Amino acid sequence: MGLNERGHILKQAIKWVLDAGDMIRTKMDEPIQIDTKSNPNDLVTSVDKETESFLVKKIQAHYPEHALLGEEGHGAHITSLDGTIWIIDPIDGTMNFVHQKRHFAISVGVFHDGVGEIGIVYDVMADILYYASRGEGAFKNNHQLEPLNDQVQLEKSIIGLNHLWLCENKLVDEKVMQKLVKIVRGVRSSGSAALDMAYVAEGALDAYLAMGLSPWDIAGGTVLVNEVGGRTTNHLGEPLHMLKRNSLLTSRDSIHSDLIQQFLEKGQK
Amino acid sequence: MGLNERGHILKQAIKWVLDAGDMIRTKMDEPIQIDTKSNPNDLVTSVDKETESFLVKKIQAHYPEHALLGEEGHGAHITSLDGTIWIIDPIDGTMNFVHQKRHFAISVGVFHDGVGEIGIVYDVMADILYYASRGEGAFKNNHQLEPLNDQVQLEKSIIGLNHLWLCENKLVDEKVMQKLVKIVRGVRSSGSAALDMAYVAEGALDAYLAMGLSPWDIAGGTVLVNEVGGRTTNHLGEPLHMLKRNSLLTSRDSIHSDLIQQFLEKGQK
Repeated sequence: MGLNERGHILKQAIKWVLDAGDMIRTKMDEPIQIDTKSNPNDLVTSVDKETESFLVKKIQAHYPEHALLGEEGHGAHITSLDGTIWIIDPIDGTMNFVHQKRHFAISVGVFHDGVGEIGIVYDVMADILYYASRGEGAFKNNHQLEPLNDQVQLEKSIIGLNHLWLCENKLVDEKVMQKLVKIVRGVRSSGSAALDMAYVAEGALDAYLAMGLSPWDIAGGTVLVNEVGGRTTNHLGEPLHMLKRNSLLTSRDSIHSDLIQQFLEKGQK
Repeated sequence: MGLNERGHILKQAIKWVLDAGDMIRTKMDEPIQIDTKSNPNDLVTSVDKETESFLVKKIQAHYPEHALLGEEGHGAHITSLDGTIWIIDPIDGTMNFVHQKRHFAISVGVFHDGVGEIGIVYDVMADILYYASRGEGAFKNNHQLEPLNDQVQLEKSIIGLNHLWLCENKLVDEKVMQKLVKIVRGVRSSGSAALDMAYVAEGALDAYLAMGLSPWDIAGGTVLVNEVGGRTTNHLGEPLHMLKRNSLLTSRDSIHSDLIQQFLEKGQK
């Protein structure tokens, strides 16, 4: 994808995301229909669906040749990353949206032939826009983010981590992960993967680890973290696949291999 | 403490806290001196100390007869809760302040003869002020908070919980706590006890559990949660002591005894 085309798509995508955020904020105080999906804690609301529809209509009207993959059902048939594909989560952190009315994000990633070209993560209630385009840096509300300091060590790190890593799980011995918790400076859990990735990009978290995320949870954030020199892989250091569910480790370069070698690989099941 | 006196103190305390917040925000982009206290992760900065000094000077000038207990050293000699005492944390969540430049709070509690009269928790960077005075309700940016819904069950709860509860610890069998994590809808960890207590007061968290907190971490938040009908005790349901370190369980009434009986008492060491 050329510089011109990418710049044009980024500008439009940002406008649509901000417009979608306006819509969500006006709906915050209205009654919201809440359903569940795969399990009782996998929530979806009418606002998730309406927001995805809004974005999909915009994209399809302006880029009928682009493919689309969305959390709320668009593009479930897609089997190839050839060409340009928009990967969308209308509300990442739906549980926060329902229970807290904040700490959720719209996430948009635009990939071309499998390469992340554009990433947008918008913290709707805080009105903070993170965006990046490949090779042109990452920004937070139009302020360019610094490349990540590569000298931070694990002992002085704050890690984003779901509490389930410390309970019996399929990926890694929980006792090894409990050691990690005791070694690092602090551990946080926000409830939004897209925001946690944005926090890594801006250096507010030094790493973020997740067990099972869908492409729409990570597509936008991956481009953000790439643009500040961070690393994004699955929990064993393998490349992510944007059409499958993945575990995720995204962090500063300095602690990425330590986390894998000393904990995730060591405790691997 | 009479209604008039309490109202007058509340008004002044809010002004001082907001002024202190202004000061902190102007210092956010200046170099900050960071030291450690009891351990390498127990951070304190020049801003913590300056903010406490600012508040202490105001209180001493206006209320020379009141006692003062602050995180950064004031009132370490106090042995009685008789009379009126201000309990102050200039920056609750210093690690967030240092690493994230947000998600920290100024916390102020005013107690009279051991009873919480006034509570203030100010999220400095989000500019959100929570405050309460005994018998007169709790407020968030001048909007009165609703009494907490008492019908929420554990399965639909979001709990604030430090990850160390799931590692070997002195208070409770970590395996019992791991069961709790799997039962509830979600678990969060913010890094600020005062903010997590404010989140319980506004219903964004259904409970918040902490292992060892000082009076200044909880004095303001306790009054907030009381005023919306929530319960605040140590992790076994016993009353808190405002001159000692305490474990903490603060929650909606509906899940408070379930958390104790099914988990904290059951797994007690």
